Amino acid sequence: MPGVWVAGAGMTKIGKRGESLPDLMAEAAHAALAAAALEAPDFIVVATMNPEEFLGDGNFASRVTTHMGFAEVPALRVETATSSGAAAFYTGFAQVAAGLHRRVLVVGGEKMTHLATPRVSELIGRSIDPYERSYGATMPALAGLIARALGAHGIGSREYSQVSVKNHANATQNPYAHHQQAVTLAQVMESRIVADPLRLLHCCPISDGAAAVVLTAAPTPVRIAGIGQGTDTLAVRHRHSLTSFRATQEAAKAAYAMAGFGPERVDFAELHDAFTPFELIALEDTGLVPPGKAGRATLDGDTAMDGRLPINPSGGLKARGHPLAATGIAQIVECVWQLTGGASGRQLDGRVALAHSIGGLATNNWVALLEKQR
Amino acid sequence: MPGVWVAGAGMTKIGKRGESLPDLMAEAAHAALAAAALEAPDFIVVATMNPEEFLGDGNFASRVTTHMGFAEVPALRVETATSSGAAAFYTGFAQVAAGLHRRVLVVGGEKMTHLATPRVSELIGRSIDPYERSYGATMPALAGLIARALGAHGIGSREYSQVSVKNHANATQNPYAHHQQAVTLAQVMESRIVADPLRLLHCCPISDGAAAVVLTAAPTPVRIAGIGQGTDTLAVRHRHSLTSFRATQEAAKAAYAMAGFGPERVDFAELHDAFTPFELIALEDTGLVPPGKAGRATLDGDTAMDGRLPINPSGGLKARGHPLAATGIAQIVECVWQLTGGASGRQLDGRVALAHSIGGLATNNWVALLEKQR
Repeated sequence: MPGVWVAGAGMTKIGKRGESLPDLMAEAAHAALAAAALEAPDFIVVATMNPEEFLGDGNFASRVTTHMGFAEVPALRVETATSSGAAAFYTGFAQVAAGLHRRVLVVGGEKMTHLATPRVSELIGRSIDPYERSYGATMPALAGLIARALGAHGIGSREYSQVSVKNHANATQNPYAHHQQAVTLAQVMESRIVADPLRLLHCCPISDGAAAVVLTAAPTPVRIAGIGQGTDTLAVRHRHSLTSFRATQEAAKAAYAMAGFGPERVDFAELHDAFTPFELIALEDTGLVPPGKAGRATLDGDTAMDGRLPINPSGGLKARGHPLAATGIAQIVECVWQLTGGASGRQLDGRVALAHSIGGLATNNWVALLEKQR
Repeated sequence: MPGVWVAGAGMTKIGKRGESLPDLMAEAAHAALAAAALEAPDFIVVATMNPEEFLGDGNFASRVTTHMGFAEVPALRVETATSSGAAAFYTGFAQVAAGLHRRVLVVGGEKMTHLATPRVSELIGRSIDPYERSYGATMPALAGLIARALGAHGIGSREYSQVSVKNHANATQNPYAHHQQAVTLAQVMESRIVADPLRLLHCCPISDGAAAVVLTAAPTPVRIAGIGQGTDTLAVRHRHSLTSFRATQEAAKAAYAMAGFGPERVDFAELHDAFTPFELIALEDTGLVPPGKAGRATLDGDTAMDGRLPINPSGGLKARGHPLAATGIAQIVECVWQLTGGASGRQLDGRVALAHSIGGLATNNWVALLEKQR
């Protein structure tokens, strides 16, 4: 398979934004194109989870490409719930790898903060198995269930509260992050209950924003070394395990197989911490720490910026924010910036980065490995 | 680029169906897999235009793959409004061409007839430019505008009424078609006005249904010789022409370039006749007849089943029906069945087939060329 490289990356400030989603996506796209020194792409992959209900607009690939001045560039939209950005990145990768297009723009975004929180929760909840939904399951409720199950595996509130403290600390150095303030362990553990045992500061915020990358068939400093997808049953009750996600394990396995190396080569990672216990699950499912060791590694500071394996230098979904279909691409943007010395104030020293995105309640997950070229 | 072949095709009867969309998609998918003698695919591309609002369900790739027994097969959803099925076909093609997967299932479907017609019209109307929508533009209204413009080009009601007569006649031989009864020219020209000058029998019905194909990297009797996409501004008022569609012209150009041959090799075609004047526009935009000749060719019977270039042997969107994201794939299914001798009762003799799908009001169009292997 021909190689695929990242030629440019860009994103908007994440947060409560007044601009329209097409405006946000255009801002991110033009930033990525400028970074790639490219005037126009050959193909555009658009990711957005549910513009019909968030915004009342459909046909969104045409909507946004027309808005950003590329009405005549072929485009399509990809959706896999909350991992739609990662799915779009994969779809763009396939376009270049197949030789169908040489310069592909991948852009994802979401606009949600104009809606009331219960409505956002209802719309995101459409990702859940209808039968479980009929009993009142929401994303936080299912995440709470999983957090409870983790208790039997030696991971408690202390461990996943520390994830929140760490990721908020990281975000203080990220001007693109939604929440750029630090939080203390006490603040996290005393914040209000959302879905017992999960508290407010264990949950990502509702955010607006967009992110974009340009993929090319011509070598650049950052190569996509591996990319993989894993899936699992829509219904959480049909899973083999509540404390690990098959979808992440399979995605990681596929990505490592394509890359020809394993987790030992990964220097830092962006992991999907929509709920902070999920960062601990992902650490183990991706093989970055051995089974049962994610809590200890976090408490020991291994995953802090000055640890042996920094996790979520951007602040993660928890503090950078989680504008749904932007997130999978924003993770790639952070990895590219870190690998190319563009992460001023939070710069890491590393050659291999891993990005991990979760769709729905871990029904449709993705892992990508980016490698800095010598 | 490695070759990509169609290994199997299947679809449901199109019409007013009582089954759920996951049931319909599973029926089509398992028919295609059976035709390909394949137990399970490596990857699944799902097309559906707006399940969130038509059905209240999201995360639809996971929803439907879990339902059909493939929860552990990687899957994603693709959307380009009414051409979503064709976009999914293209996305599956890229997966195989890139060598990422060897056996890809592409399945599309829509369920709409449980909703009131004005609500369906409103939801499909989300594809239209918001500014034009704010003045009351609907799909039939814009199609009516285009039909009026065609008048100045010598194409009137007589010509596009004949398209309806022909496609209904074709559908009488298609057991999968929504409307299997013939209509007379008088019936068409006297049916009630929908959007002047368009009448009811110039417009496709609202239909439920699903269609699927299996794509492989291993040679079969049907090769995908070419595939291409074209786009245009979301706003119809920003177009260079109302009587031809840039998006079709560019899609055809790209498909012919990949195939290495032109329209002269095409033996029959499935064209997107959501409104019957669109068949005439597509005939010219794809180069199948010279500019200005589509009306005459239709009146002369050139595009009838016994003509030199049969168009819409399935009955087309007009009579087979238009279950949105199923349509682009149902066209491919018909072409495959025709090329492999599986179109009992309406069998054509041909080696090269063209399929053409329109997304939105011709914002995002696709052309595929299928060739029977010697």
